Amino acid sequence: MAVQSVESSTTSAASSNSAASGAFGPAVALSCRECGERFELGPIFACEVCFGPLEVAYELPAGDPEGLRRRIEAGPNSIWRYAPLLPVPADVADLPSLNPGLTKLVKADNLARELGVTGELHIKDDSGNPTHSFKDRVVAIAVQAARTFGFTTLSCSSTGNLAGAVGAAAARAGFRSCVFIPHDLEAGKVVMAAVYGGELVGIEGTYDDVNRFCSELIGDPVGEGWGFVNVNLRPYYGEGSKTLAYEICEQLGWRLPDQIVIPIASGSQLTKIDKGLKELIAIGLVEDKPYKIFGAQAEGCSPVSTAFKAGHDVVRPQKPQTIAKSLAIGNPADGPYVLDIARRTGGAVEDVNDEQIVDAIKLLARTEGIFAETAGGVTVGVTRKLIEDGLLDPSLTTVVLNTGDGLKTLDAVAPTTGPSAIIRPTLDSFREAGLA
Amino acid sequence: MAVQSVESSTTSAASSNSAASGAFGPAVALSCRECGERFELGPIFACEVCFGPLEVAYELPAGDPEGLRRRIEAGPNSIWRYAPLLPVPADVADLPSLNPGLTKLVKADNLARELGVTGELHIKDDSGNPTHSFKDRVVAIAVQAARTFGFTTLSCSSTGNLAGAVGAAAARAGFRSCVFIPHDLEAGKVVMAAVYGGELVGIEGTYDDVNRFCSELIGDPVGEGWGFVNVNLRPYYGEGSKTLAYEICEQLGWRLPDQIVIPIASGSQLTKIDKGLKELIAIGLVEDKPYKIFGAQAEGCSPVSTAFKAGHDVVRPQKPQTIAKSLAIGNPADGPYVLDIARRTGGAVEDVNDEQIVDAIKLLARTEGIFAETAGGVTVGVTRKLIEDGLLDPSLTTVVLNTGDGLKTLDAVAPTTGPSAIIRPTLDSFREAGLA
Repeated sequence: MAVQSVESSTTSAASSNSAASGAFGPAVALSCRECGERFELGPIFACEVCFGPLEVAYELPAGDPEGLRRRIEAGPNSIWRYAPLLPVPADVADLPSLNPGLTKLVKADNLARELGVTGELHIKDDSGNPTHSFKDRVVAIAVQAARTFGFTTLSCSSTGNLAGAVGAAAARAGFRSCVFIPHDLEAGKVVMAAVYGGELVGIEGTYDDVNRFCSELIGDPVGEGWGFVNVNLRPYYGEGSKTLAYEICEQLGWRLPDQIVIPIASGSQLTKIDKGLKELIAIGLVEDKPYKIFGAQAEGCSPVSTAFKAGHDVVRPQKPQTIAKSLAIGNPADGPYVLDIARRTGGAVEDVNDEQIVDAIKLLARTEGIFAETAGGVTVGVTRKLIEDGLLDPSLTTVVLNTGDGLKTLDAVAPTTGPSAIIRPTLDSFREAGLA
Repeated sequence: MAVQSVESSTTSAASSNSAASGAFGPAVALSCRECGERFELGPIFACEVCFGPLEVAYELPAGDPEGLRRRIEAGPNSIWRYAPLLPVPADVADLPSLNPGLTKLVKADNLARELGVTGELHIKDDSGNPTHSFKDRVVAIAVQAARTFGFTTLSCSSTGNLAGAVGAAAARAGFRSCVFIPHDLEAGKVVMAAVYGGELVGIEGTYDDVNRFCSELIGDPVGEGWGFVNVNLRPYYGEGSKTLAYEICEQLGWRLPDQIVIPIASGSQLTKIDKGLKELIAIGLVEDKPYKIFGAQAEGCSPVSTAFKAGHDVVRPQKPQTIAKSLAIGNPADGPYVLDIARRTGGAVEDVNDEQIVDAIKLLARTEGIFAETAGGVTVGVTRKLIEDGLLDPSLTTVVLNTGDGLKTLDAVAPTTGPSAIIRPTLDSFREAGLA
């Protein structure tokens, strides 16, 4: 169902009606990131011509950046303030959702001192989202698409953050949900995924087995009416990460940062933040100036940083072995695009080991009072390393992403985090402990 | 150091200088809630005349409610937008803090349907605060007072939420912290309390022993320069809860709710929300009309609801035995004030048992995608019970507080929350499970 222009050839009544009624806002088509072929907006994710990944193409508002800026600033305290730049209807804020986004951009002066940063250092702290990870952003956009396509069940495969985000968003928006996880997940993660009352299905097998099963399900009549947020809704889902770019720039006073450090799992988030920054420049919401994008991985799952350092264009898959489980994708779909962006912008891709991740989690907690999940330890740790290696300029404005919450990865810091002392309830005992 | 008026008799250079330079904003004195005696603003918490608890007295801005409303609305996205109504300096938003508050007020239409509410039902979801409980609000005010009084160490006794809130706030604001906990706390809670890098001291004894030890410490030279947020900084600390009242009214479009359901631990939060509502009326920021305040307790620690139902003015202490550990204060300091407020406003105090708490946590999660800690299960459960008993009018506008995060009390729901099915990774196995 490739189409020459957006107006022509409608093969799906649902999607054409939706497009007509503005269900996708400024989005006009899906376009292949490899061959550029365009397709009508629909629940598809791979190019019919070259099998490349599809992404949302827009006709963005032009000509009145000041008016758009005022409209955004007067909008809701959530990602929906950026509705004019997202594949969602204009009235999206009136529809039931978790209203994620507009999380804090924390000016991290204490951390800057520790890292020898003399410019501005900010943490974009996405642990403030409703289910405490950036996944709420991407799922919120997928939910809107699911609604438009008439899906009644929301689904995904997950080992953690995504399961909770989908369960919670489905509950609030009135969808059935059915989430697939490996059957041997830690008890705490199972509770987080199950508490929202949707179906939670444990699969006897590895996470790869879960993914393979989901691909089968999506092609089977049983999966009819199912929206898999990160499969057949993936083009819409991915766009949610653009809002991180929008918020960072707005919170900096409509200013591009000089440098951003972003964690890499599939690499999608990094590519969409780059897309968002380019959009803001194109629309005229920020001044056009260079910025550098840095990718951060765990050493135990570092296919992209390995390729970057070796000067390769191809990302060779790895078997993950790291405490940063939310980043443990050994064969990242957007790896090659990440390499392109890091090289084009003059950034880099770097990795840190588990010990450095734990140290960085604690460093961020003790300097800024932010308890990050392991992915936040990866970005802070990589930032430190990039400064030491002279790749990140400490005199410029830098934003480091924390995409999740330390409460979800307590095990990472537990072995090295405990009381300073155990004492009897007496002043003498306290004095003896040397803490007075 | 009782004083007749704020201007006279300054015995503490620190506090009089601070008051002069506006360190406490519109606050003018501490006043005894029992005998009304007034004292200079200082690190004191009990009346020297009658030993009653002290609270902050203000000269609030008057005469221009519209101007004040605009000033608030143009302020930061945190409790600091209400600086003109709090005991903090006007430039407080420029000082390092976690900037808590302005959490979501969620219109809970799905939950309303389940509960038979035909009016507006809202959840004030304070799990969105930086360390995911309302404690960030109260600690933020205490930190400002500690700074003014020249304290260098922030401290508290805690079994959970408060420890993390103090550790995080101290880290960000540049204080040393030293938090006291019972030595046998669950490992997860110890990690949350310790990760911010302050001193964490386990006390061999019960929570009561910890409290007794802290009282000793505060009177000893060893405790010099120490601000215990919930002891010698308590009058300031408590004021942080007023911001819940301000936010609820602003988020309702500068309108009082008809009914509010608030959890009771010490009872302080409920009394301060009432204080905040009365202030908004007095200033003219909201219309003067009646509202009802309802208190919510767990059956296993229900000294206030027991007294309310028995028609008593005195609250008889209980030994707590409930999963709602953040509310498990058997001898609540503000219990009598809570009884007064519930009776004066035409509200009530009710309790629910552990099973009802768990059911309510799950109900809120599956209807609105909000995963509350046990205290949120208490308020939602009590709301349901109050409606069934005809004490809460389902046709009016009601706000229910969720003061904490389900991630911190996973154990409460874990035994009854798990996968719908465990299957092999095949379509046949999925079909057999009956979930298609």
